Amino acid sequence: MRHHTIEVTESLTGETVKLKGWVQKRRDLGGLIFIDLRDRKGVIQVVFNPEVSREALETAEKIRSEYVIEVSGEVLKRDPSQFNDNIETGKIEVLVNEVTVLSKAETPPFQILDDTIGEDVRLKYRYMDLRREKLQNTLRLRHQINRSVRNFLDNEEFVDIETPVLSKSTPEGARDYLVPSRVHEGEFYALPQSPQIYKQLLMLSGMEKYYQIVKCFRDEDLRADRQPEFTQIDIEMSFMDQEQIMELNERLIQHVMKNVKGVDVELPLPRMTYNQAMGEYGVDKPDTRFDLKLRDLSEFSKTVDFKVFRSTVENGGMVKAIVVKGEAENFSRKDIDKLEAYVKTYGAKGLAWLKVKEDALNGPIAKFFNEDNQKELFDTLNLADNDLILFVADKAKVVHASLGNLRNKLAKDLDLITEDQFNFLWVTDWPLFEYDEDAGRYFAAHHPFTSPKAEDVELLETEPEKVKANAYDIVLNGYELGGGSIRIHDAEMQEKMFKALGFTDEERDEQFGFLIEAFKYGAPPHGGIAYGLDRLVMLLAGTDNIRDVIAFPKTASAGDLMMNAPSEVAPEQLKELHIELDVEE
Amino acid sequence: MRHHTIEVTESLTGETVKLKGWVQKRRDLGGLIFIDLRDRKGVIQVVFNPEVSREALETAEKIRSEYVIEVSGEVLKRDPSQFNDNIETGKIEVLVNEVTVLSKAETPPFQILDDTIGEDVRLKYRYMDLRREKLQNTLRLRHQINRSVRNFLDNEEFVDIETPVLSKSTPEGARDYLVPSRVHEGEFYALPQSPQIYKQLLMLSGMEKYYQIVKCFRDEDLRADRQPEFTQIDIEMSFMDQEQIMELNERLIQHVMKNVKGVDVELPLPRMTYNQAMGEYGVDKPDTRFDLKLRDLSEFSKTVDFKVFRSTVENGGMVKAIVVKGEAENFSRKDIDKLEAYVKTYGAKGLAWLKVKEDALNGPIAKFFNEDNQKELFDTLNLADNDLILFVADKAKVVHASLGNLRNKLAKDLDLITEDQFNFLWVTDWPLFEYDEDAGRYFAAHHPFTSPKAEDVELLETEPEKVKANAYDIVLNGYELGGGSIRIHDAEMQEKMFKALGFTDEERDEQFGFLIEAFKYGAPPHGGIAYGLDRLVMLLAGTDNIRDVIAFPKTASAGDLMMNAPSEVAPEQLKELHIELDVEE
Repeated sequence: MRHHTIEVTESLTGETVKLKGWVQKRRDLGGLIFIDLRDRKGVIQVVFNPEVSREALETAEKIRSEYVIEVSGEVLKRDPSQFNDNIETGKIEVLVNEVTVLSKAETPPFQILDDTIGEDVRLKYRYMDLRREKLQNTLRLRHQINRSVRNFLDNEEFVDIETPVLSKSTPEGARDYLVPSRVHEGEFYALPQSPQIYKQLLMLSGMEKYYQIVKCFRDEDLRADRQPEFTQIDIEMSFMDQEQIMELNERLIQHVMKNVKGVDVELPLPRMTYNQAMGEYGVDKPDTRFDLKLRDLSEFSKTVDFKVFRSTVENGGMVKAIVVKGEAENFSRKDIDKLEAYVKTYGAKGLAWLKVKEDALNGPIAKFFNEDNQKELFDTLNLADNDLILFVADKAKVVHASLGNLRNKLAKDLDLITEDQFNFLWVTDWPLFEYDEDAGRYFAAHHPFTSPKAEDVELLETEPEKVKANAYDIVLNGYELGGGSIRIHDAEMQEKMFKALGFTDEERDEQFGFLIEAFKYGAPPHGGIAYGLDRLVMLLAGTDNIRDVIAFPKTASAGDLMMNAPSEVAPEQLKELHIELDVEE
Repeated sequence: MRHHTIEVTESLTGETVKLKGWVQKRRDLGGLIFIDLRDRKGVIQVVFNPEVSREALETAEKIRSEYVIEVSGEVLKRDPSQFNDNIETGKIEVLVNEVTVLSKAETPPFQILDDTIGEDVRLKYRYMDLRREKLQNTLRLRHQINRSVRNFLDNEEFVDIETPVLSKSTPEGARDYLVPSRVHEGEFYALPQSPQIYKQLLMLSGMEKYYQIVKCFRDEDLRADRQPEFTQIDIEMSFMDQEQIMELNERLIQHVMKNVKGVDVELPLPRMTYNQAMGEYGVDKPDTRFDLKLRDLSEFSKTVDFKVFRSTVENGGMVKAIVVKGEAENFSRKDIDKLEAYVKTYGAKGLAWLKVKEDALNGPIAKFFNEDNQKELFDTLNLADNDLILFVADKAKVVHASLGNLRNKLAKDLDLITEDQFNFLWVTDWPLFEYDEDAGRYFAAHHPFTSPKAEDVELLETEPEKVKANAYDIVLNGYELGGGSIRIHDAEMQEKMFKALGFTDEERDEQFGFLIEAFKYGAPPHGGIAYGLDRLVMLLAGTDNIRDVIAFPKTASAGDLMMNAPSEVAPEQLKELHIELDVEE
């Protein structure tokens, strides 16, 4: 006989049910025993009464937290005075006439419902932590998002195609995880950082519409929202231009949000160029749920008698400000010192500030502004009483990093963010290259397969920093959700690209020769996008811990505390793989 | 403007369409140019006529095989005399008024439609090979199977949960692929051979119903139908017994077969114990699409005056035979010699045979059978004129391997197999252990987490070879499609199991201590199954080459001929990973 799951509703009142699950809590009261029984659907109160079954009660006396039990009994309506609004089954209970212990439990390493337990302990006993409703719901949400994405893409005739995990190491991009080969002595596979090349080859194969929800790997030092293995929603299509690809992705987003969160996303999504994003928000992934935009005061600064501002602009830098409306009185000198310390972590030399009080500017730098300056500032920034103005003067890069991050911090501190608001937007017209000062060369901002805008191709050899890419990122609430581009599909253009990246012909042929050759046998125009699934789930689940959305996550040092991985292996295993350890004793 | 795909039907006759695709073939005829244009949907003839557009015709003159082009033009009905029944669009054609070359093509390394090209060349240019309709269809079928499996399991409330790829190496099972850790000096991850332990931990987490379509890895020497990375449909559930799990899986099979192949599978599926399968078919995965069952003549052999037979049985061996009905005349002495050579590869010392001719037995061993023996043989085997009987006398293992494989070979040779017939069946009651002569110890036949049958538990320490497992395999047309079991969910039982496998307490704790501990905090009864997806696709696609169902497969030496992987890596990469090569110069 199948058992019921704990969604047993009042409609089953009077009937006999069989339930299986974990003991959440036991209470003994007035000769009765009450157990909160938990399964994947919820929690229900089951009652042991000696008048119904003395045998069941005697068994129940030995039952403790996290025992797995099976009970049969009648569903009864509770007396209204006994309703428990904390659980969905709070108006009913089950009067047990039979109980079986399926599995005993020792005292668990921590109480499932205890929120004070450190994450290391939770990770070691992940299977206990996963019993929490919150984590169970997050994993279910993840599945729902997956399903929703698949349904949409299946309907659009995309084909889910698996690409290899044992792949080839290439020096562009992040650090690879390597896998020594047993058969090919001294050679290694690499775990893919993305299926980029494979999906492009699938376009060359004429598949036209590809997707995959796929594990990718990066051996980088981990940040809070990074994991060594992560999952990508990977999409590629032929014969569609940037507008068509963006339109399809907007409908995908709309579909998923409606399906998973019941949220209506209005289309088309807002768009912003990279330059606009950096200029107004200081970051390439603006959170548009709140205002606090960066205001450019560089021109203004040339007219003021404040050397710090004026000379910064005269030397090619800029001055920008954030106006915090009506909050001046809430920021003490000490508060502002803290904000200054914060922007200094982004390279700013200081944080200038002014407060508006009774139609006048106050603060240490107010004295540098004459009456005309003050009037202009009031007009330009539309100032009003009790406004706080925060300035950074520096190179563009520093100003944007400082104020862009300060903007996000202020929004959190001031509680400007509405929960459950989802602001999607596109950032377009990215630079094709980034210059790396340390390496002394250009790197691909996106990846080496992104195409330059047609009108900028001639700048590739002369002024690469000015070349814009046919690239588009989708941003949600200040996070990069996905990034895509129209790819190069022409052998000559791809060769030019590698040249601009400083590859010698030999390096290029050695590493990417097969791809360039592939372009020579009929390559369709194509493009695509990749979304970070873990991050998407994180944002839709409303958590800021990436480990909450992964069943068995790694720690910040890429370790698995539960299984104790990585671990030492037997010398014979290494011998077979033709490697030996290079470890200091 | 969106383009049309080449499913353009007669209903569009008279309308203007835009098509994009590859040039399959060009023919010049009477001042016109005909091009067969191919996209993911099919092939259509497009016609260039100077009276419609001289410019288009001039462009077409330069177009060659595998060019990617875009054409616009009117859909015309062909004259019935020009109908082409080889393509679905054979009754229409497109009269081109505009053409754009999207991408040129050099002479391809081989003609896409040429079936004589060796597989190595095809694998090197996999993106060309994948342009073939057959491979495209196989990848689409694979996607359809995936979808169908997901739909079924989603409806049954299973949750798709991803488990780690960077996992821990354990000595049980096949050889692991290892991944050196950069952060943890001298330590290694292993790529999972299956998510077995993770899915069991998910049951301990209370997820109750899990599935995943997931890559697994085995560093073994490859056989024709093996790949170093393969995909598993992995399923696990709590609180369900073997019958319930089998019933659910039967409905899954039924759903997929109906959905993907339009085939009605009758339920329940046939079942057979392991002993019955070995006894009657000689193999643990019987192909029941044809008869040719093994007939046990051991008792009979005791009564005959043929020493080879009699002494084999007296020494604990057996004599079995296959009767090939009505085919005696078609097997020459030479044919039978070949069959004998074949069974010798399975260890048989010889292949005895008899032919029935005019109600008498013929053949070199006929003289050993007296009249009573002959009569008994006729009755037992229900012999008729022109039957061929093939005998092997040996230890059970050799008899079964020889005749089991001979049976499959004969079915192929004699063309006894009906195409598109799908015979599913369960094989149950497996032995829990296999004895390995070389290692001198028992190994788990399935894996160390499979539970013994309750009634056999007491034999674990005394006669492990007699212990049966709660294990079930699903077989399709002679292939193992999936294998599952009810798992151990009790710490003590799991410890007994490792003891029976020869683990010391230290080895056990070191490798599986966390799992045994996990069983102590409330473990639900659980079980599951794993299907080989690649093999399932292979069987439903009707191919016997596993590489046909994988977009980018590896060769028999686990190499990727297209990307040239594995490959050498930079010394700095190895240094960061704390390893060095151990290669003979």
